[in-house]
Amino acid sequence: MAKILITSGPTRQYIDAVRYLTNASSGRMGRGLAAAALAAGNEVVIVSGPVEVEYPAGARVVWVVSTEEMLAVATAEFEACDGLIGAAAPCDYRPVHVEPGKIAKTGEPLQLNLVETDDVVATLGAKKQGRWVVGFALETEDHRLRALAKLERKHCDLMVSNGVEAMNAETNTVEVLTGAGQVVGRFTGPKDEVAQGILGVIHDRLIG
Amino acid sequence: MAKILITSGPTRQYIDAVRYLTNASSGRMGRGLAAAALAAGNEVVIVSGPVEVEYPAGARVVWVVSTEEMLAVATAEFEACDGLIGAAAPCDYRPVHVEPGKIAKTGEPLQLNLVETDDVVATLGAKKQGRWVVGFALETEDHRLRALAKLERKHCDLMVSNGVEAMNAETNTVEVLTGAGQVVGRFTGPKDEVAQGILGVIHDRLIG
Repeated sequence: MAKILITSGPTRQYIDAVRYLTNASSGRMGRGLAAAALAAGNEVVIVSGPVEVEYPAGARVVWVVSTEEMLAVATAEFEACDGLIGAAAPCDYRPVHVEPGKIAKTGEPLQLNLVETDDVVATLGAKKQGRWVVGFALETEDHRLRALAKLERKHCDLMVSNGVEAMNAETNTVEVLTGAGQVVGRFTGPKDEVAQGILGVIHDRLIG
Repeated sequence: MAKILITSGPTRQYIDAVRYLTNASSGRMGRGLAAAALAAGNEVVIVSGPVEVEYPAGARVVWVVSTEEMLAVATAEFEACDGLIGAAAPCDYRPVHVEPGKIAKTGEPLQLNLVETDDVVATLGAKKQGRWVVGFALETEDHRLRALAKLERKHCDLMVSNGVEAMNAETNTVEVLTGAGQVVGRFTGPKDEVAQGILGVIHDRLIG
């Protein structure tokens, strides 16, 4: 039994009082992972961006909006956890300037200056010490190669690689990769079942 | 009895294969307006962006993603309708260039060049001929003044003015304004009841 931190869902980076950058992450994979982790007897904390899914009652859920909030809460929660599953899709760009009101239309083009947000999994991976970290990589091409590069850069023990078609879908196809580039799991199907498969690999290799 | 077109929810403007600009419009006001319109014996067509709310079974719903799609579908549907209630919050900026893949992080700032999308209510208002058009104005300041300016610019018969706190909220406070600047309705409460109030004004003044 382990205490597992799961990040889930998208985050939002507001550009003004109304408009924001985000993605279609639904939180379904995070929900599936939480259910599988609880069923296997683990304790689960979920840090989630705004989603409509209902997380399992057995999990403690902390709601956040922005990537900065997700990072701050996840950093604090990670202290008392044995491992992290980074299933969220945090918005990784934020505007340099956030307009406090609503930007009024003028008919003219609008130039938006964005900078990268801090990477949640990479930041926690860099200070994981004895804890394990599992990341997710969502790519449109060179899935396996890019997933391995992310595994290394983010100090992950395992990386779950999936395609962009996974986003907001009911089903999913993933590969679970080790740092040596070995494929130690390949799962296709409804997200709940794929989540069970991933959790099984995590139990075998990291929780033991 | 009238045939009423209702636009509802947000739209999304993708900047690459994963990320998009949007807002937190929930579709609840559109749902409430549709329910009130159906209860009053009207026929209802809803053109909706991606939302989780369930629209009334009696309405025909056409789903869209982007503002361009919402405008195209609403333009076609408006032909056979008596009036439009523009309750949607279409994303009103789109990137000049949409990256077909997922923009890879480089550590460098990202400059996003946005242009305004065509305004759905203004475009339909300009060719309304004998039909009526009711718009919604969401403002963070000078609500009434800005709502009246929008009423005129978008060729609306009535404008519903509300504050940004309405977005994704369960309750709402609105004023219904005429072109003469007269406040002909003021409603506060759960969105379904506010929607009934607005529909009552529309019936009194436009459907008759």
